[in-house]
Amino acid sequence: MEKTVIAIDASGGDNAPTSVIGGVALAIDDKSIAADILLVGDSEIIERELEKANISKTAVSILHAPDIITPDEVPTTAVRRKKQSSIVVGTKAVKEGTASAFVSAGSTGALLSAATVYIGRAEGIERPALGVMLPNRSGFTLLIDCGANVDCKPAYLAQFAQMGSDYMSKIRGIKAPTVGLINIGTESEKGNTLVKEAYPLLEQAGVNFIGNVEAREVPLGKVDVAVCDAFVGNVLLKYTEGLATGLMGVIKDELLADPISKIGALLAKRGFKRVRKRFNHDDVGGAPFLGLKSLVVKAHGSSNANAIYGAIRQCDYFNKANVN
Amino acid sequence: MEKTVIAIDASGGDNAPTSVIGGVALAIDDKSIAADILLVGDSEIIERELEKANISKTAVSILHAPDIITPDEVPTTAVRRKKQSSIVVGTKAVKEGTASAFVSAGSTGALLSAATVYIGRAEGIERPALGVMLPNRSGFTLLIDCGANVDCKPAYLAQFAQMGSDYMSKIRGIKAPTVGLINIGTESEKGNTLVKEAYPLLEQAGVNFIGNVEAREVPLGKVDVAVCDAFVGNVLLKYTEGLATGLMGVIKDELLADPISKIGALLAKRGFKRVRKRFNHDDVGGAPFLGLKSLVVKAHGSSNANAIYGAIRQCDYFNKANVN
Repeated sequence: MEKTVIAIDASGGDNAPTSVIGGVALAIDDKSIAADILLVGDSEIIERELEKANISKTAVSILHAPDIITPDEVPTTAVRRKKQSSIVVGTKAVKEGTASAFVSAGSTGALLSAATVYIGRAEGIERPALGVMLPNRSGFTLLIDCGANVDCKPAYLAQFAQMGSDYMSKIRGIKAPTVGLINIGTESEKGNTLVKEAYPLLEQAGVNFIGNVEAREVPLGKVDVAVCDAFVGNVLLKYTEGLATGLMGVIKDELLADPISKIGALLAKRGFKRVRKRFNHDDVGGAPFLGLKSLVVKAHGSSNANAIYGAIRQCDYFNKANVN
Repeated sequence: MEKTVIAIDASGGDNAPTSVIGGVALAIDDKSIAADILLVGDSEIIERELEKANISKTAVSILHAPDIITPDEVPTTAVRRKKQSSIVVGTKAVKEGTASAFVSAGSTGALLSAATVYIGRAEGIERPALGVMLPNRSGFTLLIDCGANVDCKPAYLAQFAQMGSDYMSKIRGIKAPTVGLINIGTESEKGNTLVKEAYPLLEQAGVNFIGNVEAREVPLGKVDVAVCDAFVGNVLLKYTEGLATGLMGVIKDELLADPISKIGALLAKRGFKRVRKRFNHDDVGGAPFLGLKSLVVKAHGSSNANAIYGAIRQCDYFNKANVN
């Protein structure tokens, strides 16, 4: 098998470049990863960081991209103007075949915009979408779209269902993944205009559509793929963070409020550590932008080395699955 | 002060009539409640339940309504056809001045439909909305709309802001309640078409509008009133239930998975009990339908006696506040 190349944005994310180089170091040490690494960013900074991390210059390639697009810039404008940004240079490397996948912890909007312009949409897909792995009681649900499509046509939702189903079966190895349409009730006539019109399209989308799902059923693991527009998806995603933090805060407050419970909480430390581990997204490996001609993975803005490593592993796995 | 009358749907909800009569018994014992109780439902069943609960027939009034609208009926059709249902008879009692407020744990859609038809909208309000009290780390946030308006015009959202703000200041005693528009980012240009067009209207709505809020900030108590369309509101509401249940399930699984943590969990029992109490909605007293000429409170379908009692207290408080 020919070696594939994974391009990685060295400048994107709150902890770049240190976290990115740290993730690359973990990937280099992992002999199961078949791909070569191409770091995209300011070459001088990258070289300095590689040296600090004791990584030989021959272990990776570097693609110089001195500019950075920040998350507060208007995505389309930034992508048009900053041709030397790591996001534009990285997606172009995929377009030109220098790399087969691109990982970035930078601006979500700019990444999607650059990927759509340079890499292009897969056949039959009108809008690429961001799929996020939400932990549920027994595994993960792919919530799609959490990205840029905040105003959707019904047909987009049917395409999200297809993209999500495809991903979960190919990459996660789930046979006939169950697909649900997020709605306020389970009956087919429930919901707003968008989901009511999308429902029959999902029935004909060639996926294992099990109908509407209420949002309460998602954390309980009712479906493998949960479909919604990006406004709902993004709200749910952020709410998950807030609610988990809020709930854990209340538990902490109350367990420390009387001395016996406090001793109990101390004794249960190992159990709580396992709880945190189950809700730790680092191993998930970022969120795939689906519906593009090649794989682009959005890592969380606050990614640490382990999260970047997870994203690289995901690309490697995707490359291998696609070859087979 | 003249005595007011609160009408209560004796037939609505999963645990009716027992839970309803139980809630009424608690209200009768509570001498701080100034209102009289009017039970609406099948009079024969009500009389039997009153006897079982040892409530004197003279302590309450009864309005005979032999029919029941079930939650799976199409609301508008059911309201039009079942004139003898507890929901229609109860809202009519408010319209005719027999009662000043109505509490029901029955079908949300039918209750809203009947209330709009018989009680009517308050001046300047195009669509009544359901406000739900979500517990946050320090108190409660009113999430509005969680009801029937799944496809909204921007102007509706501005009216929800006004109704919610008004309620939180009058009934909850919060001065200049903070109002946020639920969005996927805090900048004013973020979001889908609906929220982008609603933003300037909320700025001019005469409320303490603090701008967009990300859903993650709601459980942390960032705002007193969180505004959204009913699709988003209902999805969030149900997701809250699912996520809290899922998270508590994971905590339980992991704390019981090793013997030391298990002992810790047992010792922390009192603390966990307080956690559950903080997330117990019973005392909140149901969800008010705002924007009507009179107060209508939707109690949760699974309400127990304590939840019904809370809803009665809320109506009583509202009556007193309105008089002053």
